[in-house]
Amino acid sequence: MSGCCAVILAGGQGKRMRSDLPKPMFEVLGVPMLDWVISACEESGIDDICIVTGFNHEVIERHIDGKYPTVLQSERKGTGHAVMMAADWLSERRDKNVLILNGDAPFIDRETILAALWQHEAKQDDVTVITAEIPEPHGYGRIIRTDTGISAIVEEKDATNEQKLIREVNSGTYWFRADRLLSSLEKLRPNNAQNEYYLTDTIYILLSEGCKANAYISANPDTVLGANDRKGLLMLNDKARTAKIYQLLDEGVEIVSSDGVTIGRNVHVGAGTRILQGVILTGNTEIGENCVIGPNCLLDNTKIGNNTTINCVQSHDSTVGNNVSIGPFVQLRPGTVIQDGVKIGDFVEIKNSTIGVNTAVAHLTYIGDSDVGSGVNFGCGVVTVNYDGKAKFRTVIGDNAFIGCNTNLVAPVRVGNASYTGAGSTITKDVPDGALAVERSDTRIIEGFGNRRLQDRIARNTRK
Amino acid sequence: MSGCCAVILAGGQGKRMRSDLPKPMFEVLGVPMLDWVISACEESGIDDICIVTGFNHEVIERHIDGKYPTVLQSERKGTGHAVMMAADWLSERRDKNVLILNGDAPFIDRETILAALWQHEAKQDDVTVITAEIPEPHGYGRIIRTDTGISAIVEEKDATNEQKLIREVNSGTYWFRADRLLSSLEKLRPNNAQNEYYLTDTIYILLSEGCKANAYISANPDTVLGANDRKGLLMLNDKARTAKIYQLLDEGVEIVSSDGVTIGRNVHVGAGTRILQGVILTGNTEIGENCVIGPNCLLDNTKIGNNTTINCVQSHDSTVGNNVSIGPFVQLRPGTVIQDGVKIGDFVEIKNSTIGVNTAVAHLTYIGDSDVGSGVNFGCGVVTVNYDGKAKFRTVIGDNAFIGCNTNLVAPVRVGNASYTGAGSTITKDVPDGALAVERSDTRIIEGFGNRRLQDRIARNTRK
Amino acid sequence: MSGCCAVILAGGQGKRMRSDLPKPMFEVLGVPMLDWVISACEESGIDDICIVTGFNHEVIERHIDGKYPTVLQSERKGTGHAVMMAADWLSERRDKNVLILNGDAPFIDRETILAALWQHEAKQDDVTVITAEIPEPHGYGRIIRTDTGISAIVEEKDATNEQKLIREVNSGTYWFRADRLLSSLEKLRPNNAQNEYYLTDTIYILLSEGCKANAYISANPDTVLGANDRKGLLMLNDKARTAKIYQLLDEGVEIVSSDGVTIGRNVHVGAGTRILQGVILTGNTEIGENCVIGPNCLLDNTKIGNNTTINCVQSHDSTVGNNVSIGPFVQLRPGTVIQDGVKIGDFVEIKNSTIGVNTAVAHLTYIGDSDVGSGVNFGCGVVTVNYDGKAKFRTVIGDNAFIGCNTNLVAPVRVGNASYTGAGSTITKDVPDGALAVERSDTRIIEGFGNRRLQDRIARNTRK
Repeated sequence: MSGCCAVILAGGQGKRMRSDLPKPMFEVLGVPMLDWVISACEESGIDDICIVTGFNHEVIERHIDGKYPTVLQSERKGTGHAVMMAADWLSERRDKNVLILNGDAPFIDRETILAALWQHEAKQDDVTVITAEIPEPHGYGRIIRTDTGISAIVEEKDATNEQKLIREVNSGTYWFRADRLLSSLEKLRPNNAQNEYYLTDTIYILLSEGCKANAYISANPDTVLGANDRKGLLMLNDKARTAKIYQLLDEGVEIVSSDGVTIGRNVHVGAGTRILQGVILTGNTEIGENCVIGPNCLLDNTKIGNNTTINCVQSHDSTVGNNVSIGPFVQLRPGTVIQDGVKIGDFVEIKNSTIGVNTAVAHLTYIGDSDVGSGVNFGCGVVTVNYDGKAKFRTVIGDNAFIGCNTNLVAPVRVGNASYTGAGSTITKDVPDGALAVERSDTRIIEGFGNRRLQDRIARNTRK
Repeated sequence: MSGCCAVILAGGQGKRMRSDLPKPMFEVLGVPMLDWVISACEESGIDDICIVTGFNHEVIERHIDGKYPTVLQSERKGTGHAVMMAADWLSERRDKNVLILNGDAPFIDRETILAALWQHEAKQDDVTVITAEIPEPHGYGRIIRTDTGISAIVEEKDATNEQKLIREVNSGTYWFRADRLLSSLEKLRPNNAQNEYYLTDTIYILLSEGCKANAYISANPDTVLGANDRKGLLMLNDKARTAKIYQLLDEGVEIVSSDGVTIGRNVHVGAGTRILQGVILTGNTEIGENCVIGPNCLLDNTKIGNNTTINCVQSHDSTVGNNVSIGPFVQLRPGTVIQDGVKIGDFVEIKNSTIGVNTAVAHLTYIGDSDVGSGVNFGCGVVTVNYDGKAKFRTVIGDNAFIGCNTNLVAPVRVGNASYTGAGSTITKDVPDGALAVERSDTRIIEGFGNRRLQDRIARNTRK
Repeated sequence: MSGCCAVILAGGQGKRMRSDLPKPMFEVLGVPMLDWVISACEESGIDDICIVTGFNHEVIERHIDGKYPTVLQSERKGTGHAVMMAADWLSERRDKNVLILNGDAPFIDRETILAALWQHEAKQDDVTVITAEIPEPHGYGRIIRTDTGISAIVEEKDATNEQKLIREVNSGTYWFRADRLLSSLEKLRPNNAQNEYYLTDTIYILLSEGCKANAYISANPDTVLGANDRKGLLMLNDKARTAKIYQLLDEGVEIVSSDGVTIGRNVHVGAGTRILQGVILTGNTEIGENCVIGPNCLLDNTKIGNNTTINCVQSHDSTVGNNVSIGPFVQLRPGTVIQDGVKIGDFVEIKNSTIGVNTAVAHLTYIGDSDVGSGVNFGCGVVTVNYDGKAKFRTVIGDNAFIGCNTNLVAPVRVGNASYTGAGSTITKDVPDGALAVERSDTRIIEGFGNRRLQDRIARNTRK
């Protein structure tokens, strides 16, 4: 898309959000609205982008981190004024078409951008307003059409009763010929008592000079949606959630109840996988086919293979293989790799460790900073003691080892292949292959102790 | 219902589900749609049933497992052709009324089946189409009524504009006199270019021979619902969930928020019980009266007594008594029996064990393959070591025993009545009644160790 | 509001609830409807309140616990009869305005009560009916207005077709001049075959005597809502939940999905805090600013500071500081105080303990009845052994201590400042400041043990 560039207006404050965050930084499905808009550009092949910042601009600059140039609108003087801030940047792109977008209208999409551009170029228009037909147009700018294009965008407050019936509204996104936009910006004058410059006035300037203005109706009416308060933001989130759920259903994913199901836009889920209620999938999470996920999972940047069951698990930055069963009540922390056929039961935490094929970790166990072989059996209550108060060390466990219940493995330590540790042992030295290591004292039996205690209890209860 | 039999058409594929599962095997509330239809027959007293299979018929045959005969429609040539496959079976039932049902329309119900049969017999009709009046009939076959019955079922594509306004539609379920059905099937001819035989054409054949066709309007408009894709299946699930929730509310169950609440059709819940959000009850789960269940429980085939609190628990194939409190964060695995008055705290797993009256298992404990008496107190971190890498063994704990924290009970082992185990002990031999068993070494105190470490830490932090 | 008093009618049964609970005791958002009504009075400055009980009056008396006087309506003879029961109480308040309310219409609010009183006094009316305009008035008493006030309240069954179109309906709440109410009650006669006295008939009596009756339209149409069955109660809960969520959104709280989110009316949440799905906040819970709460938390009477993360936690009667991170899968039981900067990981229970600044409790730990200093590090699997079968004792841990994994701290015990305990030790005596305490036996290595076991396993598998 070498003939195209984009300017994203991201200066808004969002006062009614009651927050210091710039409005485009509020999140929909966990992603700032600004990033939705940038993604729509990038998916349309437009990567020559300038971002106009304003309120708390440092937040956006830090977020963009130099990936795209930003220009600052230091005074809040309207959308036309905001685009003027990009005039220098635009003047190097005079021969291009420029897309102007709102950084807080996240649902603009590739299809709309490209189809509008196609019409813009095919009709050789100077400006193409992207519009949508919506059932309740109240509050939006109405599009006044002519035989050959459009003649005006009428704001709610200026609309006649007849105009108020028009359901085609301005989305705030436009394709301009950059040279025409620049020349009209030079002629733009403040529109109102607040001394604001309206971008829509450039259309009248262009029309008055004999240029051609037209509108493209997006097939996606959500294109026009933004959020002015947190209620609106919740509504955008609900729309985005439902859209993603419907997409997955079409792709053959089974969702039994969508209550609490929140799946990020970059998440992939394979056909035949069943998602139960309360499942949150974020980041670049990928789920294979024929899995069962849920209820109540939170998987972030986690890869899951096929035929795997994940029940009440929280996981970050981890990888899980095929035919694995995990949960309920498990946490996988970053750097966890679970290989095929592993079974992990309840109350288990795994961190920065590899668990080999067909290993079983049944219950109440912490495995941290460990390399665990295949076919290993962990008893209940095993702890890898990876921290001595000074530094962290690794534990290595060989194939087919059997770790007894409540064993402490004090790292750095290696438990050999096919070796055993006795229940309740604290293992501080390496265990050779095929051996048993056991730390055990003699057990003393004190006859009558329990009976005396019981008599005390009975006496106490009798006194009550 | 000795004069009745049923044929269930279960050959559909469900292409848009993107799955190899036959359509009638897709689940609503955890139960295949086919089983909903079979249950409706059985609840109506009809247990002489023939199932016509088709796409991936082995899946259905395996599921039915010989309980009912199946016949295979090896080519997909329409509903009339499907019923022809059952002609031999029907020819042994010439004197009966036969109910033809769709295996993927799960909401047919006993009231509808029996009331339609009553009308069918009372009016001495030869075929009675079960219909429903629905607000949005688009896509369904419309019923054309006459003074004495019906004259046609008009498909959407053949309907005149006037006929499209008719809101009475075909559910796809019919009562036929079996002999009439058989004779009309013999005369049935392919209807279209695809060479398909339509079951509805039998009605025209019967009418042309002077037989009587009529329609019965079900009080339950959901009778007509099926699912062609997973979006539709989600909708059926939502309908079924809501219907079950309303039924329980009518029966005196309190539901504070229905979000995530999913209760299977065979589940019973007593009056006065409160169900919180995120509760999934499946299989033959039975909950008593005045319990509190939730939030976030998954109870499958689990029986709960009265006045019991179940908070954030997953349970399969277990039984819990009265006045019990369990949770949060507990798993009961198959074969668990919890007797009255027991208290189970957090991070506890119990499997294949009996826990006696008034016993307390407060936290971080695994009890597997154990017989636990009454009045027992488990310290935190107790583990029944039931597996030695070769076989599983049982642990027996007597009444009023006191198991110290982090005790390992290495099975097979018996802890006697009123006996104690010391914290941190690994118990490998039986503890006599009323005794104390303790495994403990001397504790060494190394003065200054911690101070040196602290100085190291301070030094490190200073260098940073 | 010294010139005002209130009578709350709380005698209803709620038969269709299928419960022995008086109807006003059914809960909305965890608070009995009666308490919603009492709170509305109290928030309006009215604390001179008389409650008329009836069905299972002991339950209400026990709940009110003497805070307000109650009078018993022992026969169920209508709303007029119920108010008669308070005649003695009212006769001492002849010069006041009295508010009559339904104990099972929870959404009456301060604004409505005070604005209606203001009109009542400004217009010098003798009775002011609080009304609302609702879209579906079916079943409610319709208000017949005149030029100067109202002339009647017509019940559904008595309404003409024209009157049924009236959308202004009676909420069942009234301001009366107490003297007028008393005199009209004396003249009240049974209205119907059931011998019931209707409170609305007092309006006709007053009008017939030349008194002035008027109506005040509440801005809040939910004022009229009550619940006759549990379906209605679920609807009230949903309304109350949504209202609270919208209030918090307006106050700058971020809610990504409201599924399963249930926030009690007395709960406060600071701006910038993000609430995820499945969060239940009850009692007097207070959350600070810029926290992340959820998913799936249940916080009851819990105070949380600022910038704190609470993930999958259940907490009762606890306090948590600033910059704390807790979860997932944690329980805080009553009496827990978590100071600033603490990190608590997974599968941790804390009860009746203080955790000092910057202490870390990473996993699988129980801390009960303990005073823990600052900068302490708990290894995995630590247990405070606070109960010896006879009594509970406290554990004291000094600043910067390091508690090794699977340590048992047998209370009463003190671990000194900057001291260490070795992994797997059971500590029964105080550990001096800066020392290391370790209980450890020799570890025996039995060569070949594991190999023999492995050979057995292979042999077994071969035989299969």
